[in-house]
Amino acid sequence: MSKLLEDAVGELSKLPGIGRRTAMRLALHLLRQEVADVEVMTGTLSRFRNRIKYCHICNNLSDDDICPICADSSRDRGTVCVVEQVSDVISIENTRQYKGLYHVLGGVISPMQGIGPSDLKIDMLLDNVARYGIKEVILAVGTTVEGETTQFYISRRLAEASGVRVSTIARGIGFGDEIEYADELTIAHAIHNRTPLK
Amino acid sequence: MSKLLEDAVGELSKLPGIGRRTAMRLALHLLRQEVADVEVMTGTLSRFRNRIKYCHICNNLSDDDICPICADSSRDRGTVCVVEQVSDVISIENTRQYKGLYHVLGGVISPMQGIGPSDLKIDMLLDNVARYGIKEVILAVGTTVEGETTQFYISRRLAEASGVRVSTIARGIGFGDEIEYADELTIAHAIHNRTPLK
Repeated sequence: MSKLLEDAVGELSKLPGIGRRTAMRLALHLLRQEVADVEVMTGTLSRFRNRIKYCHICNNLSDDDICPICADSSRDRGTVCVVEQVSDVISIENTRQYKGLYHVLGGVISPMQGIGPSDLKIDMLLDNVARYGIKEVILAVGTTVEGETTQFYISRRLAEASGVRVSTIARGIGFGDEIEYADELTIAHAIHNRTPLK
Repeated sequence: MSKLLEDAVGELSKLPGIGRRTAMRLALHLLRQEVADVEVMTGTLSRFRNRIKYCHICNNLSDDDICPICADSSRDRGTVCVVEQVSDVISIENTRQYKGLYHVLGGVISPMQGIGPSDLKIDMLLDNVARYGIKEVILAVGTTVEGETTQFYISRRLAEASGVRVSTIARGIGFGDEIEYADELTIAHAIHNRTPLK
């Protein structure tokens, strides 16, 4: 087999969820594209990795030192939504419902993977809360054991900060989800925390 | 959203089978890799697209003008296996059972997609058969309507070449396949072309 092809397949199959078969299909796809288009792709990915920054305030991905959300004066600067990762910011932004700021932790506390509080941007969050006079912190981390641990740890740290409300996003049965397929913990929580209609 | 991230996701989601969600996951994966490793990846893909050649004899992908298989004097130079695409060569090579040469057509005849015989390397195959004294041509194209059409067309063209045997790979129930799940055409063919055991 061609060394050039072998190398291309090798690199593509390092990507998560892409096995050798798919990598081969992708490599052959690249051959059917114009050389200039493949140059644009590789150049874009290289530039992305080389030039991307993390916002100095919220740790979100950014082209500049301060991300567009933190720089946007029309947003509610008293509310911070704490998320695990960049993709969560995008998911929440896509709803167009939230007008506050974000804080990207960069992961969750996971003793199994050797990730402690100091590996996450938690001190940065506490500094921001004090410095920018944040009024409410919304914790929007996952419902895994690690997520719950992280949430508990942050809410404990924030307990010392006076005048700051701390909330967590609502848990329950998702819209369009069947109760039949929801797990017991979610159903139990959804019933216990039922919303009064009248 | 960061323009750099937006562009990276845009490029990745152009790849076949990769939607925006997966593209986002891949982009964030790249961020967790070392800058140098991402440079190696983008450089490898760029070099692959820029430098890859097609073997002047068999049209297989090659780093040089002649591919390693055509250049290998230990292979059976009287037999040519005709396949649609490069990945078919790799699949057959992986079996380590076939010792002849290959010929990569680069597709199949498909009037629907505007692909006629002249868009494929069929004349190149016929030239090779005459020039290199090929004794047997094994047609290993797919069993789609287009594949059958291509096979019929090539076997007709080869009918004029004297002293050349033409065969097609065996069709039937694959090893490990359940008869229950095989299509009717395959089952009918498998019964009609049954192999005597005694």
